[in-house]
Amino acid sequence: MSEAVISAFNWVPDFAKGLVRDLRIRWACEEIGKSYTTHLLNAREPRDEEYRKWQPFGQVPAFEENGLRLFESGAILLYLGDEDERLLPGDAEARWAATSWLIAGLNSIEPLAQRAVTYDVFHADKDWSKDARASIDELIRSRLAGLSEALDDKEWLAGSFSVADIVMVTVLRILRHCDLLDEYPNLAAYKARGEARPAFQRALAAQLADFEDQPTTPA
Amino acid sequence: MSEAVISAFNWVPDFAKGLVRDLRIRWACEEIGKSYTTHLLNAREPRDEEYRKWQPFGQVPAFEENGLRLFESGAILLYLGDEDERLLPGDAEARWAATSWLIAGLNSIEPLAQRAVTYDVFHADKDWSKDARASIDELIRSRLAGLSEALDDKEWLAGSFSVADIVMVTVLRILRHCDLLDEYPNLAAYKARGEARPAFQRALAAQLADFEDQPTTPA
Repeated sequence: MSEAVISAFNWVPDFAKGLVRDLRIRWACEEIGKSYTTHLLNAREPRDEEYRKWQPFGQVPAFEENGLRLFESGAILLYLGDEDERLLPGDAEARWAATSWLIAGLNSIEPLAQRAVTYDVFHADKDWSKDARASIDELIRSRLAGLSEALDDKEWLAGSFSVADIVMVTVLRILRHCDLLDEYPNLAAYKARGEARPAFQRALAAQLADFEDQPTTPA
Repeated sequence: MSEAVISAFNWVPDFAKGLVRDLRIRWACEEIGKSYTTHLLNAREPRDEEYRKWQPFGQVPAFEENGLRLFESGAILLYLGDEDERLLPGDAEARWAATSWLIAGLNSIEPLAQRAVTYDVFHADKDWSKDARASIDELIRSRLAGLSEALDDKEWLAGSFSVADIVMVTVLRILRHCDLLDEYPNLAAYKARGEARPAFQRALAAQLADFEDQPTTPA
């Protein structure tokens, strides 16, 4: 057994700190007490060819354990869940509900949350960004309303805590720059419940520490 | 064993015909000779509460088999792959490579392809859409270049044909309104290779037939 390796950045712009997706894998590892080391990359420099063989788009996280290499946070979480029922229940109904919600987070909610932050923050100074943002307003609210209704008063999305919640809580965190979540009190409480888990806190501290260790030279 | 059920639409606007994501599940079923029936919905009417309990956002596809309900095309494909090695190899290395690529298709490429078609087609008449489209041009090209380099001269993304290819081929089809794919000849050939499979052809014909069966009343 070789120790797990997670790729991450040693520098990102301030608005991305605490949001980079290696957080999801650190969180999952903390939930099950799996130790890992990090393979740190400089976000300001192009990734080399060797890393692109591991992660074809040069993104983080990528993951390696016992010679097995994976990329994409969703795939790595499914792999970790396959190994440990604390992350993905063995019971078929709960397992496939959690898988459905994990994919929903990645494909039906994250792309819209990402567009919101792109328009609101990244392109805030462009004259087209307000119209572009307005064009997704109805859709993003309809997705959050659907999520809110499905979550209802449940603690987690698919029975016990699972990788689906790791995805969805970190996806909802992308909206921290705006007050959209205030309109869905059960979603705000759900996000806070995820963030209050000791494993999340340790994962977040570890991600931020990897930024702190680096000299803060300008981009 | 109850027959599998896939939800789909009986009407969509012309630009969406052949792209709606139930195609992915029909394709997977055709690859392994699994029979299914469809639960057809009218895309012009709001989905009722009963359907929203099955698919929380009112989207298609949702899936049911033997009392097990799933939603999100990616999750349904993983479920079908779990049942049949022709869709997801049992060997760990190939299995997790395919899972990584399936998620990459859904989370790193589809959201950008979807934005391209949204700006280019859906909002083509808006004065902000050209700038919004230009803002993703570099990123979408970089992702396609990464995919093209990783695919290289391979037939499929992760060894033998898998659910990763069902996702990626259908994601690349989203770009049919523009000529972006012409710049990556191996991706264009890969997409054509997927579309040439008899199972894809049967799945596409079945989706289109479900539109044909309906009266073409105006929206």
